[in-house]
Amino acid sequence: MKSNTCPGFLFSGIPSGIKANGNQDLGLIISEKEATVAAVFTRNLVCAAPVLLCKERVRKGRARAIIANSGNANCCTGEKGMENALRMTKAISDILGVSDEAVYCASTGVIGEPLPVEKIEKAAPDLIKAASYEGMDDFAAAIMTTDLVPKIHTSKKTVSGKTVTVTGVAKGSGMIQPGMATMLCFICTDMEIPPEKLYDSLLKGTEKSFNRITVDGDMSTNDTVLVMANGISGLSADDPEALAAFDEMLEETLLSLAKMVVKDGEGATKLVKIEVNGAESDNDALLAAREIANSNLVKTALFGEDANWGRIIAAAGRSGARLDQTKIDIFFNEVQMVKDGMGLGKKVEAEVSKVLKFPEYTIRLELNQGAGRDFMYTCDFSYDYVKINISYRS
Amino acid sequence: MKSNTCPGFLFSGIPSGIKANGNQDLGLIISEKEATVAAVFTRNLVCAAPVLLCKERVRKGRARAIIANSGNANCCTGEKGMENALRMTKAISDILGVSDEAVYCASTGVIGEPLPVEKIEKAAPDLIKAASYEGMDDFAAAIMTTDLVPKIHTSKKTVSGKTVTVTGVAKGSGMIQPGMATMLCFICTDMEIPPEKLYDSLLKGTEKSFNRITVDGDMSTNDTVLVMANGISGLSADDPEALAAFDEMLEETLLSLAKMVVKDGEGATKLVKIEVNGAESDNDALLAAREIANSNLVKTALFGEDANWGRIIAAAGRSGARLDQTKIDIFFNEVQMVKDGMGLGKKVEAEVSKVLKFPEYTIRLELNQGAGRDFMYTCDFSYDYVKINISYRS
Repeated sequence: MKSNTCPGFLFSGIPSGIKANGNQDLGLIISEKEATVAAVFTRNLVCAAPVLLCKERVRKGRARAIIANSGNANCCTGEKGMENALRMTKAISDILGVSDEAVYCASTGVIGEPLPVEKIEKAAPDLIKAASYEGMDDFAAAIMTTDLVPKIHTSKKTVSGKTVTVTGVAKGSGMIQPGMATMLCFICTDMEIPPEKLYDSLLKGTEKSFNRITVDGDMSTNDTVLVMANGISGLSADDPEALAAFDEMLEETLLSLAKMVVKDGEGATKLVKIEVNGAESDNDALLAAREIANSNLVKTALFGEDANWGRIIAAAGRSGARLDQTKIDIFFNEVQMVKDGMGLGKKVEAEVSKVLKFPEYTIRLELNQGAGRDFMYTCDFSYDYVKINISYRS
Repeated sequence: MKSNTCPGFLFSGIPSGIKANGNQDLGLIISEKEATVAAVFTRNLVCAAPVLLCKERVRKGRARAIIANSGNANCCTGEKGMENALRMTKAISDILGVSDEAVYCASTGVIGEPLPVEKIEKAAPDLIKAASYEGMDDFAAAIMTTDLVPKIHTSKKTVSGKTVTVTGVAKGSGMIQPGMATMLCFICTDMEIPPEKLYDSLLKGTEKSFNRITVDGDMSTNDTVLVMANGISGLSADDPEALAAFDEMLEETLLSLAKMVVKDGEGATKLVKIEVNGAESDNDALLAAREIANSNLVKTALFGEDANWGRIIAAAGRSGARLDQTKIDIFFNEVQMVKDGMGLGKKVEAEVSKVLKFPEYTIRLELNQGAGRDFMYTCDFSYDYVKINISYRS
């Protein structure tokens, strides 16, 4: 049995002809029994029809299935777009014989093109037929756009002799700086948890995962993180120990997927954690971390493996965080490059250059102002980011 | 006589050995008689020693000379950095026999390396000897870093039979999103105008020029715009007609130089004006224009000459500007691509593709919400931006 399964959930992914290259582009998750559901969405005022539809449906807190397509975002598509989102869910609910309101949908791809909904309707029977407990890999592939790798994470824990599972899947590579949710991410669990509690856990979990990553500072119109809980494990959120275990697994899953998204950022060759400590407040720390994580000059230097700390300190300086430039220390992993706002010289720089060759490392700023701290994950900025994005639509 | 001259001002630019390649790297502007002076500076909390020194000196409102170097920003250099900035001005004031307080300095280049001030002191006599009314081209070259072209603009007007001149010079190509001033820009005029009035005119002028441009969203640590007025023209700011003419010329000069900076943005192949009209307020319009102008996805699409308006509307949606996605119209020059938030199809897109091949054009959003309007100038984002910035220090 494959490792990325979750009791009571079936997955599939098939090509439906939306992607011109014939790749998988339509995915489905079915919960065998009715699940509770919670979701967070993009804060972008321009948002896609499926986001608007899911926002409406999630209020009821119940779900049976999610259908998702790649290759088309169904965004900026007007009333027709909403009609097509409805048709997309109906194609599934009709065959499954469940309430249409219990089916959710998500789309990702180019903005502003009409969704070829007929292709989805035509493929729906095959999509449902293909669904299996072990179909996660196909689902993960079906929601990819510029992603190079599928992103799946499963976590299991035993509480009071019962095992609970959290399995998550995400897509995302460009247009990544989620404001509240992110690109697409779906989580399945066999925990029993009411929708309000599920939402609380999700909010808490996304805050320190998907809300702490950036690839290019561009917040998407389709960001959705949706979690379904079917209760099959027999473990309930009423049991504080079980809830704590669930929250921990959910956070681990969200953070793991979020890091996979940055690592697979368009053109990225490095995954870099920007840590800011000693700020006046946590918010000051986040401001500085986010500005550094989004600086094109910092990110191109990371690609060039250049210890150009001047760009890092300049980004912190303009971030809005309160700071005194003569107090700032900067570390690359454990190597200190800057003390009291000044570089420690060529010898240290040679040590830092070694760190910069690692595929993953941490840049840590100590502002020495207070106790505020926060972090961001970012990637470097390469020729390939430009290459991918000049030609994405064609 | 060369056209970029201003009565009473002498200019020079020579190599002093700061740049390893032997290019000009040290520039000087001398005012034959004491001039009034005003300046605006970066809002970056991390700022360079010469910025701190000029902020102090400009309070007196008097100037005789400016010395500027490229190849080293004298930033994050501690007390030694301030000492070196002082030595830099003293090298000039001693020989000219003027008060040290009347000499200003500016530096641009790599952050965090000690300024080789001995080279500047050694070159100072030659620098002064080389100064001439017609030396502007040499000065402009001496302050260039990654700039490909020098940036000079001269404006002349006749008021009441007397001619007044405004001559400006700027450098800047990367780390460009001035918050209040910009990179380096020096303006000379023979208008007679007291420092407070000069400051008012400068603030007004920079607001709609250097504060409306971006190359990469990175605010520099050394941004300085400084204007000197020597009064030689015989036209005074007490004459409302003369002041109005001066303000107009100053604005024209600042905007012209600001556009040159964006056009020469690192790796840039296009100069694009982003206009946002019909917003709830001018500030909403600026928020949207700035977010679009800084979007890496928009900028790579501009490089790819791809009419990817979905990225433009997504950037507006996350900008913080109040808007209704179903009301947005988008134009490329006069060609309408989007109506009521939806694309107008492939035929129109073919027309837009022609516009996207121009070296300069305007993208205009009509939000249809109110009367607010503003604009930004930006450039596209190419492979060469990455190439320039992975290797800038080496």
